[in-house]
Amino acid sequence: MTDNAVASRTPLTLLGTGAMGTALARAWLAAGHEVTVWNRTPARAQALAAEGAVVAASAAAAVAANRLVIACLLDDASVGEALDGADLAGRDLVNLTTGTPGEGRARAAWAEARGARFLDGGIMAVPPMVGDPDSGGYVFYSGSPEAFEEHRDTLAVPAGTRYVGADPGFAALHDVALLSAMNGMFAGVAHAFALIRPEDIAPKDFAPLLFGWLTAMAPAVHQTADQLESRDYTRNVVSNLAMQAAGIPTFLRTAEEQHVSPELLAPYLELMKRRVAQGHGDEDGTGIIELLDTRRGA
Amino acid sequence: MTDNAVASRTPLTLLGTGAMGTALARAWLAAGHEVTVWNRTPARAQALAAEGAVVAASAAAAVAANRLVIACLLDDASVGEALDGADLAGRDLVNLTTGTPGEGRARAAWAEARGARFLDGGIMAVPPMVGDPDSGGYVFYSGSPEAFEEHRDTLAVPAGTRYVGADPGFAALHDVALLSAMNGMFAGVAHAFALIRPEDIAPKDFAPLLFGWLTAMAPAVHQTADQLESRDYTRNVVSNLAMQAAGIPTFLRTAEEQHVSPELLAPYLELMKRRVAQGHGDEDGTGIIELLDTRRGA
Ligand SMILES: NC(=O)c1ccc[n+]([C@@H]2O[C@H](COP(=O)([O-])OP(=O)(O)OC[C@H]3O[C@@H](n4cnc5c(N)ncnc54)[C@H](OP(=O)(O)O)[C@@H]3O)[C@@H](O)[C@H]2O)c1
Ligand SMILES: NC(=O)c1ccc[n+]([C@@H]2O[C@H](COP(=O)([O-])OP(=O)(O)OC[C@H]3O[C@@H](n4cnc5c(N)ncnc54)[C@H](OP(=O)(O)O)[C@@H]3O)[C@@H](O)[C@H]2O)c1
Repeated sequence: MTDNAVASRTPLTLLGTGAMGTALARAWLAAGHEVTVWNRTPARAQALAAEGAVVAASAAAAVAANRLVIACLLDDASVGEALDGADLAGRDLVNLTTGTPGEGRARAAWAEARGARFLDGGIMAVPPMVGDPDSGGYVFYSGSPEAFEEHRDTLAVPAGTRYVGADPGFAALHDVALLSAMNGMFAGVAHAFALIRPEDIAPKDFAPLLFGWLTAMAPAVHQTADQLESRDYTRNVVSNLAMQAAGIPTFLRTAEEQHVSPELLAPYLELMKRRVAQGHGDEDGTGIIELLDTRRGA
Repeated sequence: MTDNAVASRTPLTLLGTGAMGTALARAWLAAGHEVTVWNRTPARAQALAAEGAVVAASAAAAVAANRLVIACLLDDASVGEALDGADLAGRDLVNLTTGTPGEGRARAAWAEARGARFLDGGIMAVPPMVGDPDSGGYVFYSGSPEAFEEHRDTLAVPAGTRYVGADPGFAALHDVALLSAMNGMFAGVAHAFALIRPEDIAPKDFAPLLFGWLTAMAPAVHQTADQLESRDYTRNVVSNLAMQAAGIPTFLRTAEEQHVSPELLAPYLELMKRRVAQGHGDEDGTGIIELLDTRRGA
């Protein structure tokens, strides 16, 4: 790499060299960025020093070193602690620490009050995916559109970028929403494997059927979106809720026959029944989303 | 179609011309099979008569008409009622009525005691998919391997076939397991849409992100199968349960901030915590399957 190429890359500061911070630092170093790192426990930053990173003696010194400052710490509270004595004026703070939408918004206001532009990020990847453009990993960003525009190429180095809006809470919201949906899917998968477990059925024969079925049914999310936008939950219904609810006893009896606790399955079946009881048997599942709203009367 | 081609196709009897039975009958008629139908409410079979089906006056007469008898009725009890006075000796009874694995096994013993071979089926399709080879719909079959071999081409006419074993309970088990997993995924999807609902985020912009994430994470079922077969739940762990459990407060606080009930999410998070508390923080989610076993001490 020529000196010119290096010079054209934005130097940056990274706070936190845990598992994720280290993977991020390596990706930027590999792409020729000057990287200044700081970690509360200095020993955990030493490996990166050997790989070309500058290790700062304090978070304040690390922040002073570069205009672009990325934080990847345990949680929002640790971001506040780490940056307590740092001068953020004129800095672009990109917070890749996992948090809630509310924490993202509060941290944005806090950073802006200290003279910084702020971007929040939600990392949809695990460390081995970082720096691998084929991994499919990416990061949700929200907050200052100007800061995102200015740094988008730099931010795209460790993983793909998805800018989801100026509201600094939106990155965390998208992150948590997708992970929550994934946990629902994994809960269903756990129940399914539990059902076949007492039988002479090889998990490896069952897994491709499960994979095929889940991926074939996943496009239903587009139907849900369409119904939410049209506010017509009976639109293009293929299998209505009344018919689905009729199958509930079969689900529950099968679980019982197979000695499987219904605890992961029952809450969704209960909401199905409630929605049908409210006279919405001609819808499909979209109306269940309304039942989750805690601001509605129960 | 020549008379010869028609003659080479197995004539069959179909009991039940509800939404699914009618779709099945149409697929077989379109493929040139002679189809004898019976329905408890005769008026519901008249449309098929106009399309070439023979309408039998009773279930017993319909069963007498053909060796291959397919039942697609409301539930297992209605199969028993409908076939009460019929002579099943020498018949091949294919039961496409949804039920539990236990019902499939009991119905098989009942049919065999009456001199019939028995196949149970679990339909992984809705009526509009039946007869459309590109729909991806299929039917799980289990029970008599000889009956399946003899009729596989006929059974493949309305939808793809997946034979999953001689145990007549396995078709229903596979059916219910896949639908249960799907309900888990849909529960997660409902929670995710509920989280973004209070915000100015278009469901149609969010849906592709959700779809992409779920389909990217679905291959985890192969890892789960591999761990179950090896009985080593720490094998190839990318994101361990302890780390995932550390994120639980963020999931729950985000739900609270967004005014979303945690009822669909909480049971899985609880099991995560229980597994970690039992000293399995180095696993990924596979061990949760064991916690669902009601025969274990709690
Ligand atoms: N790893 C993943 O798979 C993954 C995936 C997506 C998102 N994330 C997110 O990335 C962030 C970092 O995760 P990680 O995997 O790198 O975690 P980690 O390996 O546990 O590292 C945590 C980092 O936070 C620092 N820290 C903790 N408390 C602190 C405090 N009070 N003040 C200053 N620094 C503090 C730690 O410093 P010490 O070394 O001094 O303890 C360490 O640098 C988290 O928000 C996580 O949710 C991780
Ligand atoms: N539709 C789907 O999307 C779908 C998908 C997969 C599996 N299935 C399964 O396919 C089967 C049939 O479903 P479907 O959609 O066709 O239901 P449907 O339209 O409600 O039809 C039910 C059928 O069962 C008959 N029946 C009900 N009780 C009876 C009794 N005691 N004795 C005799 N016949 C009785 C009905 O006869 P009458 O006309 O006299 O009431 C009718 O023919 C069910 O087991 C269902 O779970 C359906």
